[in-house]
Amino acid sequence: MSRNKVTVVGAGNVGGTTAQRLAERNYTDVVLVDIVEGLPQGKALDILQSGPIYGYDSKVIGTNDYAETANSDVVVITSGSPRKPGMSRDDLLETNQNIVGSVTDAVIEHSPDAILVVVANPLDAMCHVALQRSGFPRERVVGMAGILDTARYRTFIAQELGVSVREVSALVLGGHGDTMVPLPSLATVAGVEISKLMPKDRVEAIVQRTRDGGAEIGGLLKTGSAFYAPSAASVEMVDSILLDQKRILPCAAYLQGEYGINDLFVGVPVKLGRSGIEEIVEIDLSEEEKGQLRTSADAVQELVNVLNG
Amino acid sequence: MSRNKVTVVGAGNVGGTTAQRLAERNYTDVVLVDIVEGLPQGKALDILQSGPIYGYDSKVIGTNDYAETANSDVVVITSGSPRKPGMSRDDLLETNQNIVGSVTDAVIEHSPDAILVVVANPLDAMCHVALQRSGFPRERVVGMAGILDTARYRTFIAQELGVSVREVSALVLGGHGDTMVPLPSLATVAGVEISKLMPKDRVEAIVQRTRDGGAEIGGLLKTGSAFYAPSAASVEMVDSILLDQKRILPCAAYLQGEYGINDLFVGVPVKLGRSGIEEIVEIDLSEEEKGQLRTSADAVQELVNVLNG
Amino acid sequence: MSRNKVTVVGAGNVGGTTAQRLAERNYTDVVLVDIVEGLPQGKALDILQSGPIYGYDSKVIGTNDYAETANSDVVVITSGSPRKPGMSRDDLLETNQNIVGSVTDAVIEHSPDAILVVVANPLDAMCHVALQRSGFPRERVVGMAGILDTARYRTFIAQELGVSVREVSALVLGGHGDTMVPLPSLATVAGVEISKLMPKDRVEAIVQRTRDGGAEIGGLLKTGSAFYAPSAASVEMVDSILLDQKRILPCAAYLQGEYGINDLFVGVPVKLGRSGIEEIVEIDLSEEEKGQLRTSADAVQELVNVLNG
Amino acid sequence: MSRNKVTVVGAGNVGGTTAQRLAERNYTDVVLVDIVEGLPQGKALDILQSGPIYGYDSKVIGTNDYAETANSDVVVITSGSPRKPGMSRDDLLETNQNIVGSVTDAVIEHSPDAILVVVANPLDAMCHVALQRSGFPRERVVGMAGILDTARYRTFIAQELGVSVREVSALVLGGHGDTMVPLPSLATVAGVEISKLMPKDRVEAIVQRTRDGGAEIGGLLKTGSAFYAPSAASVEMVDSILLDQKRILPCAAYLQGEYGINDLFVGVPVKLGRSGIEEIVEIDLSEEEKGQLRTSADAVQELVNVLNG
Repeated sequence: MSRNKVTVVGAGNVGGTTAQRLAERNYTDVVLVDIVEGLPQGKALDILQSGPIYGYDSKVIGTNDYAETANSDVVVITSGSPRKPGMSRDDLLETNQNIVGSVTDAVIEHSPDAILVVVANPLDAMCHVALQRSGFPRERVVGMAGILDTARYRTFIAQELGVSVREVSALVLGGHGDTMVPLPSLATVAGVEISKLMPKDRVEAIVQRTRDGGAEIGGLLKTGSAFYAPSAASVEMVDSILLDQKRILPCAAYLQGEYGINDLFVGVPVKLGRSGIEEIVEIDLSEEEKGQLRTSADAVQELVNVLNG
Repeated sequence: MSRNKVTVVGAGNVGGTTAQRLAERNYTDVVLVDIVEGLPQGKALDILQSGPIYGYDSKVIGTNDYAETANSDVVVITSGSPRKPGMSRDDLLETNQNIVGSVTDAVIEHSPDAILVVVANPLDAMCHVALQRSGFPRERVVGMAGILDTARYRTFIAQELGVSVREVSALVLGGHGDTMVPLPSLATVAGVEISKLMPKDRVEAIVQRTRDGGAEIGGLLKTGSAFYAPSAASVEMVDSILLDQKRILPCAAYLQGEYGINDLFVGVPVKLGRSGIEEIVEIDLSEEEKGQLRTSADAVQELVNVLNG
Repeated sequence: MSRNKVTVVGAGNVGGTTAQRLAERNYTDVVLVDIVEGLPQGKALDILQSGPIYGYDSKVIGTNDYAETANSDVVVITSGSPRKPGMSRDDLLETNQNIVGSVTDAVIEHSPDAILVVVANPLDAMCHVALQRSGFPRERVVGMAGILDTARYRTFIAQELGVSVREVSALVLGGHGDTMVPLPSLATVAGVEISKLMPKDRVEAIVQRTRDGGAEIGGLLKTGSAFYAPSAASVEMVDSILLDQKRILPCAAYLQGEYGINDLFVGVPVKLGRSGIEEIVEIDLSEEEKGQLRTSADAVQELVNVLNG
Repeated sequence: MSRNKVTVVGAGNVGGTTAQRLAERNYTDVVLVDIVEGLPQGKALDILQSGPIYGYDSKVIGTNDYAETANSDVVVITSGSPRKPGMSRDDLLETNQNIVGSVTDAVIEHSPDAILVVVANPLDAMCHVALQRSGFPRERVVGMAGILDTARYRTFIAQELGVSVREVSALVLGGHGDTMVPLPSLATVAGVEISKLMPKDRVEAIVQRTRDGGAEIGGLLKTGSAFYAPSAASVEMVDSILLDQKRILPCAAYLQGEYGINDLFVGVPVKLGRSGIEEIVEIDLSEEEKGQLRTSADAVQELVNVLNG
């Protein structure tokens, strides 16, 4: 057995912080790759130089050359352009389809057995691109969204009730966007449903704030978007895969009949282990929740139609 | 005893990552303050939303209002402008003197008993500003530089010899800049001096690369400067102070006779505990090393003269 | 603020491992005290000598002299005799009443402001002894049982379903013994009630195995009882207290009307922070669960009657 | 790649605590094996039940059957009888030769590619037994002693000088016993030799106390010997092997000419990685130190002669 190797594509804030977090884990080497010259090299060196202080000795390499990513066990794809003023949603989709498509080509050329963790936006659509371009089985293409959405949901619930986030369990399903489905019936504090702990309008306000979670951070930062929590979520997925933890985490998975949905990436609980998605966990949903998930899937379908258009 | 509270001034990359690292420690609350509206709030919320994933429950607040920093135990000052094209060194010094000076005023108004950890550049000069403006005893104003420089030195040595950074001990003294003094006689791998492990010219090359460590990262990043390792170094200082670890770490301290230097901030080994600088450790230096330290102190004196000019 | 200080009374397996775990946390000093000469000194020194390897610098002292425990913030009481062959339950109760009583006297003489975490058995009765002998307010006397019982419950559920323990939420209330109340309605995997994930008889078997959790380990070890998980549970309580995490954890608390129970220690969810028990959390129970809790309280009452007899 | 798997042979204090520490690392599964029925099962279950509290999900199995240890990556051998009253040194040696010999047979039958980490005493002699019985190349049989001795040495130095153990570097070579060689010239605090920091007689006293480190703990515990620091040291070796950290650590290695010693296990610095001992590091020693190492090797040779006698 050789050392673990994870490649992070994209040396922006999400990619850089993902590389930082992975290096601190100290169980895998990390390659940070980007087309911008100097950026991945500079960030990788800076992360490496934190090692003597934090006590880790992961190798961290920054590069513009995909050859250095060869034989990665996992590849986290954070690339993509943000939406610029005047850009239509479809323009953005096309731009990022091109970026993620060519990144996927470069990645799989050197790491044909890797598991792809997609973080690029719009998330569910970009998972599609990575699946199609790689030709990988669906077990090896998984999208990061539900962990992040759930973390936000749990944070808001903990704040509302003045408790530790560690006492809050919750689950957010569906696409990563306005139609995501935070399930209030599965949101509990020390086992007690939040509907018993706060008025209905507060639950609704928290659900809505969760849906708008990315926009809230973006609105505050103005020139950027969230990266601390997104990178934490991505690393939790890599942990579960590389350390074969078999955790059940809400991720974007390519459904083929599960939840009555076909041929679409939608956020659902999956068991993540050394083989990637080892199980898609189907949980009982109320009719209302099923309807919301269907609506969310429809929104993803629309994007996919644009991609294939 | 109430909870620990650390304020980080400046929500740029160094300040934001310092706040991230402190929150992950899970033994202190964190306030991130900046004059830019939205920026500290956005980063603080993003850090907070990582808590459910990482399992920490530190409170993290972003604000533009120093009133929220009240009664901080430690304040880390990362503010300051980078050098812009066409700006002379003295212009930069004046600009940052103004910034760090007014930050210090705002900080001490609300936290008169805090310990100040200065990370702003030019480091030694900004320590002076913080000391003078605060009127604090020298025990409670300490600058971050030597840990970072030492970490870079150790990284380069480990790379050269193909060993873990954890086996490399080293020490860098003096001002944070071209005149810093990486002591080869104290640089060892598993106890063995590096001079026995590599040719003299490699030692010299590594010493020089350490001196240029900040510039190397800046040159690669182009539009920014190092922040992963600087924030790690700052947090190691906060740890030693708040947890009263009494570690001996190379930091910028205001010397009053130690090492034959008077009334200047220079990087030397200090014992950091709950009272701040609890001891300035004087180690034996060779005549050559003493000369280098003197040269480094002179460079700091020049900057201080400009400040007071 | 000075350093945190935790005293662990009893240098057996539970006490020693509690001291080990606390030292590794690296935010508090630890005093291990026992009447047996040499034992606490030997274990403390052994723990201290692990510090250079693990990278912690907590002070760890072993002693037979309570004077060295002075001004502890938290005192964990693990003392007590195991049940010996031929000993009746009431004999055991009397023996440990004497031990915990005199330990409490010695502890409070030197640390009148400490929070007492009781781990001695029979747990709920020994909490009583500590409360009565100390004269402390009920906020500062709390028993360790529910976290351990819940951890066992979660372990068995995770094993049954082949998932990570981190996905399993659960809660065990009531006295620490045959009458404990593992609430199946609050036991969930990724938010889904276990009753939907396994047949009723498996749920019942797991509930029963949880109730017998201590005896199962004791039966296997033959000459000792569990200590790894009990010490982990105790340390989680100390963390929440000393770091003021305000976690909601199932602990033995002195009820005065809550859950319809008066003047008895019973396991319920409490919010633990720097002041000790900061809130007793009352959750909705079904009539059946209320009945079980009442039965459990009655069993505790019986022991208390013996104590006072 | 499958999950990592480590077997710990011997479920006493050293073995149990080694299993605990490995499980907490959360990157490997652990099998604890012992001939005593119930003991490994009980400890393994207790460790497993700590998982929900500490947040790890390592699989931990206790067994009496070596078949369950199959395909371990690393096997830590902690078995062996303590010296009983009236037992001669040679009797003890013979007893443990038999134990470690048969353990080695059982281990290699099921894990022919494992790396053996020997912790049984007398250490250097038991390494011999493991090497001979396994027929493994010397790269895959390594003994734990120097890390423990060095940790004790560092602890005593830190205590003497009132500094953090993290600032103390040191190295102990030679056999694990009265003839071990703590090198004062390589013992430094923040890079400064301890001979400059304390009088000669204090250095000598600390060196002697280090040599007697095991006996000191044994004398205090009376009915047992050290296990916290020995298990920490063993786990540091497993980390460096399984995570391929390539750390340079003082371990017992089978020398074939290095340091002028042939066909003996003696404590020297080695680089530990995924292949086991990847390099034996030869450092410059003074004539006096060479003499001490030779004396230490002679003492090991004597034991080996008894083994082969």
